[in-house]
Amino acid sequence: MQFHIDKSALSSVVSTVSRAISAKTNMQILEGLYMEAKGGELILRGTDTEISIESKSACMVDTEGSIVLNASLFGDIVRKLPAAMVHIESDGQKVKIVCEHSRFELMGQNAEEYPQLPELEEKESVVVTADDLLKAFKETQFATSNDDMRIALTGVLLDVTHEGITFVALDGYRMAMSRIAGEQQLERDLILPARSVTEIAKMVEGKGALSMEIGSNHLLIRLDETKFYTKLLNGEFFQYNSLIRREHDVTVRLEKKPFIDALERASLMTGKERNGLVKLEIFDDRIEILSNSEIGNVHEVVEAQKTGEDLTIAFNARYLLEGIRVVAEEEIEMGFTDAVNPCIITPNAADSYLYLVLPVRLASL
Amino acid sequence: MQFHIDKSALSSVVSTVSRAISAKTNMQILEGLYMEAKGGELILRGTDTEISIESKSACMVDTEGSIVLNASLFGDIVRKLPAAMVHIESDGQKVKIVCEHSRFELMGQNAEEYPQLPELEEKESVVVTADDLLKAFKETQFATSNDDMRIALTGVLLDVTHEGITFVALDGYRMAMSRIAGEQQLERDLILPARSVTEIAKMVEGKGALSMEIGSNHLLIRLDETKFYTKLLNGEFFQYNSLIRREHDVTVRLEKKPFIDALERASLMTGKERNGLVKLEIFDDRIEILSNSEIGNVHEVVEAQKTGEDLTIAFNARYLLEGIRVVAEEEIEMGFTDAVNPCIITPNAADSYLYLVLPVRLASL
Repeated sequence: MQFHIDKSALSSVVSTVSRAISAKTNMQILEGLYMEAKGGELILRGTDTEISIESKSACMVDTEGSIVLNASLFGDIVRKLPAAMVHIESDGQKVKIVCEHSRFELMGQNAEEYPQLPELEEKESVVVTADDLLKAFKETQFATSNDDMRIALTGVLLDVTHEGITFVALDGYRMAMSRIAGEQQLERDLILPARSVTEIAKMVEGKGALSMEIGSNHLLIRLDETKFYTKLLNGEFFQYNSLIRREHDVTVRLEKKPFIDALERASLMTGKERNGLVKLEIFDDRIEILSNSEIGNVHEVVEAQKTGEDLTIAFNARYLLEGIRVVAEEEIEMGFTDAVNPCIITPNAADSYLYLVLPVRLASL
Repeated sequence: MQFHIDKSALSSVVSTVSRAISAKTNMQILEGLYMEAKGGELILRGTDTEISIESKSACMVDTEGSIVLNASLFGDIVRKLPAAMVHIESDGQKVKIVCEHSRFELMGQNAEEYPQLPELEEKESVVVTADDLLKAFKETQFATSNDDMRIALTGVLLDVTHEGITFVALDGYRMAMSRIAGEQQLERDLILPARSVTEIAKMVEGKGALSMEIGSNHLLIRLDETKFYTKLLNGEFFQYNSLIRREHDVTVRLEKKPFIDALERASLMTGKERNGLVKLEIFDDRIEILSNSEIGNVHEVVEAQKTGEDLTIAFNARYLLEGIRVVAEEEIEMGFTDAVNPCIITPNAADSYLYLVLPVRLASL
């Protein structure tokens, strides 16, 4: 293998595929980055077996061939090379990198040992814009579970129907749901691992329309010269529709920002042992937020418009905050039945987002 | 105690004194921030017993008094309060904080238990500009020792004479020296703890002329409404003058930037076991940098102008890099005797900085 490529082009493609490579692996070949020079192109690949990324760049190929190089070392070398033409050649597993007055020699690994890219047979496509996808990910990903015993819940469900896509994440204490309306060709459930959601979000930022190709076990996104593959999670997701209540006995409308500020202040006084417990006392024209612990107590008042009876209800402040912070609109609506049933939070002027959070039962209520 | 103060003024003075407070202390009173309302002023203090900071702000005092509050909790509360007037009052050790619709109650500690500020008797003064001080700190602090068995070497020496101040730090492998020329009233050695150097640097950035008052065991810097005290380190510093060689058998002049880049690339290949060892082969018009380890080898060439014989010498790349990166000028001069005596690095066009670094003896040299 022998090829020549501009440093900045090489650096860009190396950093793209390195995103798939995990620092924590006990298989040496997975610390590597697959490199192939073929027909006027440099093809790089990285994988942690869950996510795989392939990216290409035009280059001058003298001799075709392939090799695997340690991704972290090769990435460091490329980043620090001067902005000039980089010459790379391999002789067996020995690789030479020359750029101006710098010359490196390092050992690669056999390219044939590197995992293949997934094959997507009988694939179907889902079409979304990058902005819609980013919004739906932001509105749901925080609510994924960390419980490896229920692996399906560690990911984000995409429930695709002919009318649109519903994104759902839940962890047993709260559920976040986001919807992208728009016609789709297929009807299908799929679950994206949380880490794939993070990487897709980084990759598609600032892009336009995306086509996500869906195979039986993988999803593929193509962006310019880059292909991003992720495994889908197996297992049964929760029947989330059964949780959603549309009629509430008590409804409260309020501004998001002052409510978030007050909850953040109140949560400072919840102490270590109390796990962020705050009590909401909901009156006609306001919500009072109370918390007290061994370190002291706090009392906050925010304006609100209520319909229905007065209500006292307690929450884990973190769960409330996480669900409200992602709301894009200025006003929210909170719907309650009583002090023990879930609270449902939606933006006041949009129906694309819904957050459901369980209250905490207080002995003193 | 009862007073009223604007949130932003309070927030600013709290963050200033909190710099002196260490998160890692096993004396509960030292997690606190001393607060006193007196004669139209709010006076705050923080200390970790090594560094003490006092800062003041004008405020409306209804009732004079003092209290100690947990610095981390109080700081978090103040930061998150709305931008409005903050009302603080204490009743015994119970403290109430009210701002718009927020009301906090927390327990303070007795202000009489808080450490006193150091007293500087028979103090003398050193005068410098903030910019000169920051440059001298930057050029020396990185070379301080971590060895608590030789406590004096964990700080930066200020050797004050009538002609100027010499700053020195050394750790047994290298020595960094920086000089601020200019008449001083006193002749005196003093050693600043490394952490104090860091905090002074943050505090004086962007300021003009500074007067540093020096007592027998403390140094005091006054900035606007803030007083910064630090203990001085005791113990004997190294006789650094005896180390400095002014005549060299081999002298090399070269540009700093390409040399740093080449050393950084070469150090990538030194591997874990080799502790960053690089070999320099110094010829008439160039330095070749070589390194090889279990992960591969590297060869770099940088242009240089040499007087004297050719020389092969090895260094720890990190020690070389740290001493060269802080040089403000574009060109450096490296002076050698042979492969086993220290190398002395100075800026080519200035004599305010000098760096001395020991070579590593190579079996193969």
